[in-house]
Amino acid sequence: MSDARGARERLVVIGGDAAGMSAASQARRLRGPDELEIVAFERGHFTSFSACGIPYWVGGDVPERDRLIARTAEEHRARDIDLRMRTEVTELDPGRGRVRARDLDSGAESWTSYDKLVIATGARPIRPRLPGVDAPGVHGVQTLDDGQALLDTLARTRGRRAVVVGAGYIGVEMAEALINRGYRVTVVNRGREPMATLDPDMGRLVHRAMEGMGITMVNDAEVTELLTGDDGRVRAVVTADAEYPADVVVLGIGVRPETSLARAAGLPLGEHGGLLTDRSMRVRGHENIWAGGDCVEVLDLVSGQQRHIPLGTHANKHGQIIGANVGGDYATFPGVVGTAVSKVCDLEIARTGLREKDAHRVGLRFEKVTIESTSRAGYYPNASAMTVKMLAELRTGRLLGVQIVGREGAGKRVDIAAVALTAGMTVEQMTALDLGYAPPFSPVWDPVLVAARKAASKIRAGS
Amino acid sequence: MSDARGARERLVVIGGDAAGMSAASQARRLRGPDELEIVAFERGHFTSFSACGIPYWVGGDVPERDRLIARTAEEHRARDIDLRMRTEVTELDPGRGRVRARDLDSGAESWTSYDKLVIATGARPIRPRLPGVDAPGVHGVQTLDDGQALLDTLARTRGRRAVVVGAGYIGVEMAEALINRGYRVTVVNRGREPMATLDPDMGRLVHRAMEGMGITMVNDAEVTELLTGDDGRVRAVVTADAEYPADVVVLGIGVRPETSLARAAGLPLGEHGGLLTDRSMRVRGHENIWAGGDCVEVLDLVSGQQRHIPLGTHANKHGQIIGANVGGDYATFPGVVGTAVSKVCDLEIARTGLREKDAHRVGLRFEKVTIESTSRAGYYPNASAMTVKMLAELRTGRLLGVQIVGREGAGKRVDIAAVALTAGMTVEQMTALDLGYAPPFSPVWDPVLVAARKAASKIRAGS
Repeated sequence: MSDARGARERLVVIGGDAAGMSAASQARRLRGPDELEIVAFERGHFTSFSACGIPYWVGGDVPERDRLIARTAEEHRARDIDLRMRTEVTELDPGRGRVRARDLDSGAESWTSYDKLVIATGARPIRPRLPGVDAPGVHGVQTLDDGQALLDTLARTRGRRAVVVGAGYIGVEMAEALINRGYRVTVVNRGREPMATLDPDMGRLVHRAMEGMGITMVNDAEVTELLTGDDGRVRAVVTADAEYPADVVVLGIGVRPETSLARAAGLPLGEHGGLLTDRSMRVRGHENIWAGGDCVEVLDLVSGQQRHIPLGTHANKHGQIIGANVGGDYATFPGVVGTAVSKVCDLEIARTGLREKDAHRVGLRFEKVTIESTSRAGYYPNASAMTVKMLAELRTGRLLGVQIVGREGAGKRVDIAAVALTAGMTVEQMTALDLGYAPPFSPVWDPVLVAARKAASKIRAGS
Repeated sequence: MSDARGARERLVVIGGDAAGMSAASQARRLRGPDELEIVAFERGHFTSFSACGIPYWVGGDVPERDRLIARTAEEHRARDIDLRMRTEVTELDPGRGRVRARDLDSGAESWTSYDKLVIATGARPIRPRLPGVDAPGVHGVQTLDDGQALLDTLARTRGRRAVVVGAGYIGVEMAEALINRGYRVTVVNRGREPMATLDPDMGRLVHRAMEGMGITMVNDAEVTELLTGDDGRVRAVVTADAEYPADVVVLGIGVRPETSLARAAGLPLGEHGGLLTDRSMRVRGHENIWAGGDCVEVLDLVSGQQRHIPLGTHANKHGQIIGANVGGDYATFPGVVGTAVSKVCDLEIARTGLREKDAHRVGLRFEKVTIESTSRAGYYPNASAMTVKMLAELRTGRLLGVQIVGREGAGKRVDIAAVALTAGMTVEQMTALDLGYAPPFSPVWDPVLVAARKAASKIRAGS
């Protein structure tokens, strides 16, 4: 399939994590080193690691850092990928087809030309410009280095009071990690309820469950300052209303696309600051540049809008698709439906599709239902309660979104809705879905079917 | 919506279990007793019970029988359903619109006329005509009475050797139940491997896992005789090759539609012996007779053929749909894709769509792949191995079927494939599915996606 044409091409990859190294590996699988030279730049100490696994390493579920590394630099090099660690790309020159990179240890800079370029620069954590935010004891959890620094702080700190700023999925996962390490945890959240990826009525269920775990949940609270002690270390988090003593602070406020290089080079960015690509993950208007992972925006198939969704599973898909296309094969990324699942201790939280406010924003009118059911037949041991919320478009009855909060067995049920959304099913069609049933696995009507029946009934009544 | 027209109609329901009583309840919801009289006949002692729960009651996971009864006769009667227990319908006269019923206690018989009739006579267990099959200590597990009789035998029996005849889902669930009761269990199976609802290569995984649990699995073995002792009780199960000592024998050979009444009345039956209905669950050619549950055949949406699939979840759907239609509303049952999930101890077994032999039978050519993956990210605690087999149609790439064998978190993943089958997705489309990902829930590529990628690659290579 591939075009050798005698001349060896050079692929340059910026960013040595999920999207970049998946792209490099897939391209290498399709084209050998005599056809394609692959140079990859990574500014950090690690490559191909699971950022999503950091909370579980910090919390002790994953015993050691290296378990989070899917493939080491040496393993990539053994596959003829010229991976340059601790080397930061500082300039991108699409006109001349080259990148400038600096060796972070020696400070040496040089230009490398490319025939094809993959931008996989990821995302950078939002770090609020607050007094005290750079004090020792204040930690982000974006990289393995961040995780190690936090673990070092936890090992050194005598006090057992932790404050997590932010109540998105990183915030709640870090709350669990710190609970597991024996901390008294307070989560300070700017929003009405934790998990702003859910509607507030479902976030409220998360709120109550977190309180039940002994986590102090502070909503509607903007952090104004971090106070430090005589030793210069953080000692409290301050909001307009209160001061929360803290021996350690974790920032889990979210991330933005890391696209400063791309912006400086004039590449097209969307309203969320992410690179814009076509379905082959090629940067719009640039024949020989691809981009994927946390630095791009993706099409939301339900709303038709562009979104920024930093998730390892998308980054891996992007990398595969880019690698296939760079390697002379063909693959596309149609978009996302916005599925996400997370947990805090034994509480499982899942969502896919549109929230109420997403639907309003794009002018969709809808019916909504919320039902309570159980993970197994009610009479089976350990059947646990779950709440399912479902949105369906008025008139058409098309499924728009599902949110689930429950215990064991709740989270991955969202996949039923994710596939139904992708297929454009109506809630009426969903009522007939032939889902797996046996008492240890589900009530005779799966909770998702119970929600679909109620939603379908409301749609019929409203039409 | 409903037509009152002054005259009160009478609905007669034959069979007081899932399909029949769901139909009666739904019809009652839509039409009050002044419009619709509802008479239901049930020949047994119980109504609306979960037959699927019997293995868990026998095994001790469900502490008492009454937990399996979703709604008692009294509860149905309180909703103005004239439910006549221990009353068997002995003749059906569609020409004159009446049924003859016998009170099993008094022996009294009488005719009851109907305007509308629901046939929900369920299925009867296959009971091989073998010497000794009626001896004390030999048990079926179809009804609550069966379950109680088996529990009584277990309480009385000193020995601890159990033989289960049949290795379908009832057989393996009963093997688990007897293991849980402290028995040494032998499963005697006519087929090549247990779980004939799977392809033999996947059944082989179940076989090995059952052996790992200490269950003796005997395949390719036809039972020829049951031996009894001097006390008349069963003492051994005999096959052509061996004799298996048994203090208790459980028959889990499967069921057939119970349609003797319907057959005698000349109603249309399919090749599996089940009643044939249209999509509204109305018996073909009979304007005022509906049928649902284990006594009907259903359309397999993947193969286009009629099948007999006795499952509580279908029976409940049928009942709802019949009740809606009888009650003057409108609902249809489009068919099934053949999803089933079961477990034996901690092994989860799931399937949906076509096996290899099903595809061959209907002339479909396909590619097949089998992959190994894990339930969670590999580095996360308790990530367990699972095997996913996927069939996709040659040329079109349309998903045809999925089989999964694994541990916790394996079984309900089949729902992803069940929805994709219903939507007619190709395996290539499935590779882009936006499924829930976080380390405690899934590897970054969900096992179903890993299988879809491999299948899509094979389809491309073969086209």
